[in-house]
Amino acid sequence: MSKSSFPIYNFNAGPAMLPKEVMEMAQSEFLDYKGSGMSLMEMSHRSPEFDQILEQAIADLKELLDIPNDYSVVFFPGGATLQFSAVALNLLDETESADYSLTGVWSVKAYQEAKRFAPNVKIVFDGKDKNYHSIQELKDSDLNPGSKFLYITSNNTIYGSRYPAFPQVSLPIVADMTSDILSRKLDISRFGAIFAGAQKNIGPSGLTVLIVRNSLLRENSRTIPTLLNWKLMAENNSLYNTPPTYPIYLAGLVFSWLKKKGGIAVMERENEAKAKLLYDFLDASEAYTVPVPKPIRSIMNAVFHLKNQEWENEFVKLSEARGLIGLKGHRSAGGFRASIYNAMPKAGVEALIEFLIDFEKSKLG
Amino acid sequence: MSKSSFPIYNFNAGPAMLPKEVMEMAQSEFLDYKGSGMSLMEMSHRSPEFDQILEQAIADLKELLDIPNDYSVVFFPGGATLQFSAVALNLLDETESADYSLTGVWSVKAYQEAKRFAPNVKIVFDGKDKNYHSIQELKDSDLNPGSKFLYITSNNTIYGSRYPAFPQVSLPIVADMTSDILSRKLDISRFGAIFAGAQKNIGPSGLTVLIVRNSLLRENSRTIPTLLNWKLMAENNSLYNTPPTYPIYLAGLVFSWLKKKGGIAVMERENEAKAKLLYDFLDASEAYTVPVPKPIRSIMNAVFHLKNQEWENEFVKLSEARGLIGLKGHRSAGGFRASIYNAMPKAGVEALIEFLIDFEKSKLG
Repeated sequence: MSKSSFPIYNFNAGPAMLPKEVMEMAQSEFLDYKGSGMSLMEMSHRSPEFDQILEQAIADLKELLDIPNDYSVVFFPGGATLQFSAVALNLLDETESADYSLTGVWSVKAYQEAKRFAPNVKIVFDGKDKNYHSIQELKDSDLNPGSKFLYITSNNTIYGSRYPAFPQVSLPIVADMTSDILSRKLDISRFGAIFAGAQKNIGPSGLTVLIVRNSLLRENSRTIPTLLNWKLMAENNSLYNTPPTYPIYLAGLVFSWLKKKGGIAVMERENEAKAKLLYDFLDASEAYTVPVPKPIRSIMNAVFHLKNQEWENEFVKLSEARGLIGLKGHRSAGGFRASIYNAMPKAGVEALIEFLIDFEKSKLG
Repeated sequence: MSKSSFPIYNFNAGPAMLPKEVMEMAQSEFLDYKGSGMSLMEMSHRSPEFDQILEQAIADLKELLDIPNDYSVVFFPGGATLQFSAVALNLLDETESADYSLTGVWSVKAYQEAKRFAPNVKIVFDGKDKNYHSIQELKDSDLNPGSKFLYITSNNTIYGSRYPAFPQVSLPIVADMTSDILSRKLDISRFGAIFAGAQKNIGPSGLTVLIVRNSLLRENSRTIPTLLNWKLMAENNSLYNTPPTYPIYLAGLVFSWLKKKGGIAVMERENEAKAKLLYDFLDASEAYTVPVPKPIRSIMNAVFHLKNQEWENEFVKLSEARGLIGLKGHRSAGGFRASIYNAMPKAGVEALIEFLIDFEKSKLG
């Protein structure tokens, strides 16, 4: 079917590739969900069919991430940006404060949005001077007195960096895990709230998952847009109004696929192996460099540069002709980026390395 | 494929059935969008493919509804409820006011949400005492001095009523058209803003379309959650962050289908003919009643009751066995409701009437 004679591997940072088995399953029941004669997307969100999908998706996510009983799983429409506002509106009164660790553009945006609603929020680390290729290990003594939580972005899609381990602090951590949720094991009890836009490791864009400790679902003095109210949405089990039913269905298929794969521990080993394969090659090569220090390299987004920038256009053209799509780096960072989320098979990384070898040879002989 | 031996007709109020041709097209390119080897939902929202989809969808909607040049079309994640907050936040300062016409639960919810952010908003009509089976024709003399706009819900899904003609007022009208957009011709210039959740006449749930007069895209003194800021989203052409790409793609297919059908004038005639067929039968029948006065009957949602309430469970069971799905009325209104949006073919209405005749005969002989 495809224009290329090579198999297509999609390294887009997000919306990103979804597991082949999930996409094939979704296509097979696209027009007729389980003999109903209707597409799931044509069914009422109050139907027994959708109810079952929602309940199963929540149960599977709880099982996969070993989410304790005192946490709620809530689906929201939209992406993580909408939750940047919600974090401040739900967790802080106008006078209260929190500590933000700035490890890239997404944490900067989250901080700026929070500051509009809670002017006392503070920056506890800023990696900007080092082009965000540095992440500080934070401990209690780094945090500001009176802070309600520590905000982090667990993985930085644009810069190819991540927290290798999460900060050992007594405050609840609030984490945007959009680009690495479900890729590695987590101790959920150390987080007050985790949210993740779906379009990398969960499903299509237009959906966000929130995992929140119930004791943080409080009333505060603010007027919060109803659909951003975490407490209300949790109490209504994500069904205050019509939710994005089709994205939730796909998320459910992805969770079920992850369970069949053996869960997050298996996924984490696979992800580490894929990333190691690629980084080991890049580090040993003559034509490529990885700008990110080894200890904080992302296992989801491998950022690399060509030693000679003049090769860039040719690299893009040739890689696409080989069926390797979406390798261009983010417009703010330049260079290249291979996003190797859960759905990227090892064969995709191997195909990429094969191309990288050929390209290097063509340039350096 | 389906369990029933009858063809399935889906009368759900929303998420609702989508045009068969659209669903078949979407299924055929689900795994491989136009030879790319990827699903559209796996593609970057900054890709040329998605860019083309977005531009075409906006151009087609402008053409279909004859939208003047001084209006913007903007896609938002989520449903209309999120825009209930956005209407007040974007169009009113905290001291400013607007007039709300309450013709059903959705306008009540919109009013209540607006009141939280703009305490001076006023009720200019309330149909509650008549179970929302009455809609007042509003004119300038009915409106409050100083109001910025008149808010209406154009069609009331739950009660089966609608504005047959829109109020002749000098103020801009702000309309929630979730359940009848694209079903009838409109003079857009009389509206300041129109918004519509996608899940009835546009596409799957999780997407809302806003049509807004550019002069209303103003700065006000409020702190608006970034993703609810109409001006910012319009300036960023719906791409401030990752939008719900797959729902936008499906909306584009629906717009293209409507153009092929001959546009909104053709659609309106078809809708009126389908509704007339059904209402004429119901009015002449012995077993059914329509609680809505003729002049304000919806052509999208036909609400009816059985003369004998004891038949209800049997009616549901038998209609489902005949492949007629989703006829049960909204839990707050009781009775029955046939949602006959654009995608419902005339054959679906005919199949429904055939069943209604058989059921009536079985009861009244």
